[in-house]
Amino acid sequence: MAPGVCRAHRQGHLNSKVIKIWNPILAKAFRPAVANSQFLSVGEAGEAFVTLVTSDSYCMGAVVVARSLRRHGTTRSVVVMVTPNVSEQSRGALHSVFDEVIMVDRIESGDSLHLSSLGRPELGITFTKIHCWTLTQYSKCVFLDADTLVLDNVDELFQRDELSAAPDPGWPDCFNSGVFVFQPSLQTHASLRAHALQHGSFDGGDQGLLNSFFSSWPVADITKHLPFVYNLSSSCVYSYLPAFQQFGHSAKIFHFTGAVKPWSSSSFKKEGQPPCMDHFVSLWWKEYLSHTTSPPPEKDFHQNVEPPKQVHEHKSEAAFTGSLDTSSSLLAHFSNTFEKLYLQPEPDTVR
Amino acid sequence: MAPGVCRAHRQGHLNSKVIKIWNPILAKAFRPAVANSQFLSVGEAGEAFVTLVTSDSYCMGAVVVARSLRRHGTTRSVVVMVTPNVSEQSRGALHSVFDEVIMVDRIESGDSLHLSSLGRPELGITFTKIHCWTLTQYSKCVFLDADTLVLDNVDELFQRDELSAAPDPGWPDCFNSGVFVFQPSLQTHASLRAHALQHGSFDGGDQGLLNSFFSSWPVADITKHLPFVYNLSSSCVYSYLPAFQQFGHSAKIFHFTGAVKPWSSSSFKKEGQPPCMDHFVSLWWKEYLSHTTSPPPEKDFHQNVEPPKQVHEHKSEAAFTGSLDTSSSLLAHFSNTFEKLYLQPEPDTVR
Repeated sequence: MAPGVCRAHRQGHLNSKVIKIWNPILAKAFRPAVANSQFLSVGEAGEAFVTLVTSDSYCMGAVVVARSLRRHGTTRSVVVMVTPNVSEQSRGALHSVFDEVIMVDRIESGDSLHLSSLGRPELGITFTKIHCWTLTQYSKCVFLDADTLVLDNVDELFQRDELSAAPDPGWPDCFNSGVFVFQPSLQTHASLRAHALQHGSFDGGDQGLLNSFFSSWPVADITKHLPFVYNLSSSCVYSYLPAFQQFGHSAKIFHFTGAVKPWSSSSFKKEGQPPCMDHFVSLWWKEYLSHTTSPPPEKDFHQNVEPPKQVHEHKSEAAFTGSLDTSSSLLAHFSNTFEKLYLQPEPDTVR
Repeated sequence: MAPGVCRAHRQGHLNSKVIKIWNPILAKAFRPAVANSQFLSVGEAGEAFVTLVTSDSYCMGAVVVARSLRRHGTTRSVVVMVTPNVSEQSRGALHSVFDEVIMVDRIESGDSLHLSSLGRPELGITFTKIHCWTLTQYSKCVFLDADTLVLDNVDELFQRDELSAAPDPGWPDCFNSGVFVFQPSLQTHASLRAHALQHGSFDGGDQGLLNSFFSSWPVADITKHLPFVYNLSSSCVYSYLPAFQQFGHSAKIFHFTGAVKPWSSSSFKKEGQPPCMDHFVSLWWKEYLSHTTSPPPEKDFHQNVEPPKQVHEHKSEAAFTGSLDTSSSLLAHFSNTFEKLYLQPEPDTVR
């Protein structure tokens, strides 16, 4: 097992180790010791969706990732990596919806300069993501950021090879690292760590690191370019609405990029936000509030977060209980309003 | 010769025909009559850069396209298509910098609904662009929008096949139609017209039409994905600054997307604009004000447009006359300030 990773099943472990790669003094310590933990048996080799939680609030997102995958009938395992700072209560709730909860040490880039340029100082911790290559109990995995929402069955992604990902709208010769197909390998993990130590990340987060490591992505193999609908960034709603209207109905995975997440309900309303963004936020909340496969974990995560008013209204109108979805896609819930919202962009009329 | 197109060399012709494809009443008239014109002999089959001018103001941009191509030593012809509404005075000035000035009929999509959604009601006229497929005196061409600035020799683009283009940041499974490699063909031209009549354009402009016509672009052939640096959209400066800092130095063609152009100097300053955008605007003005290959055409175009203050300052500091550039890239002019500007994004300190 790779250093810095310990596997647990329905069990929580604490480790306060934080590695800042960018800091040369700490760089030598980049290979963290194995956390104090029980090493539990893992399942047979197979394929898995993997996500990452580095704070209690992101647990809400991870729950939606797991539930939306299951709603659409995935046959693969659903796994979450968790850093030691996540509370035991939250980890307990994750156990109720994930097949495996895996403790990993935090890794931070410590690259405040590039993170400042990115405008996202909090993303240094996403270096932790590279621990996913240590999940060698699986032959192939698909990583999904915890701020994604699965809208359809996407098991066909396992037909792709490493490293397959969709383009990033910000600089489309880079892939967005919120959704990618990879092959666990301790050798790749070690190479990634060495690359991080030597080159850092041009954006201070995992995306800059992974793009410079898998640098042939933009030119080498078209089959490793996932269609954009597998990582449909919320930014496209603002930047090229006609394309979103044309192709958005095929969305497979929606990605709530940016600093404000659906669970940040009190601040999610933004000036100039197209109403179709509200639509996806509502879908997210419906998934979060649904109790299709397990007892509700809400008590653990969103003590201080109230669902947005729009969702309450939907509940009262449709008596939505979370167990009514028999369609193949959550989008079908909104079929009547979807087109209307798309065709009448009125940025200032949200909620 | 295809209907709607007439070739002229240092000669202007007027034709007020405007075809609105989207209007079913007018659709039957989509095959416009040949304009009244002289048909002049054309050069031997070869390769050409092609741009399009549909208004007097865009003549300023076209001049910069031609000059920046020549500055970087292109060996190909440089050609401009012009619609009849462009003044004779402006067309005369274009003759001084282009190898060929070709009159074409205006085609407008007339699709106000999608153009409104795009936020660019003026772009319906870009349907005129498809006339470029009629330039069968050339075996292969590269189209450049008149709001692009060439920063290096890009003749290697002729090694690519139709349809090669760079991804659009707004929806990266679409290509941006500001820069693309194509093969003139009357058959393709006719097919494009038929496609436009039958399907229209999902964004009301040429980009939506071309993307639905060349619909296999996102999945078929990686060699038809031009690197993003061949069509570096100004939007990336705002949306993913670290990637711009990492890869921007390799920029080959900068594209001033959006409604405000460098020649709109009085309104180009925008709140939140990173200083590196000023850098490209300054490069554009330097190219426009340079008189390296021909007498200055400014009198024809920008009677009411003053260069931004920053450019005046550069002139006084460096006594720039437009004939001093001996570097292989205009970017070298700004090598000292380039990195500084990139590494110190201060959105509110422009000019």
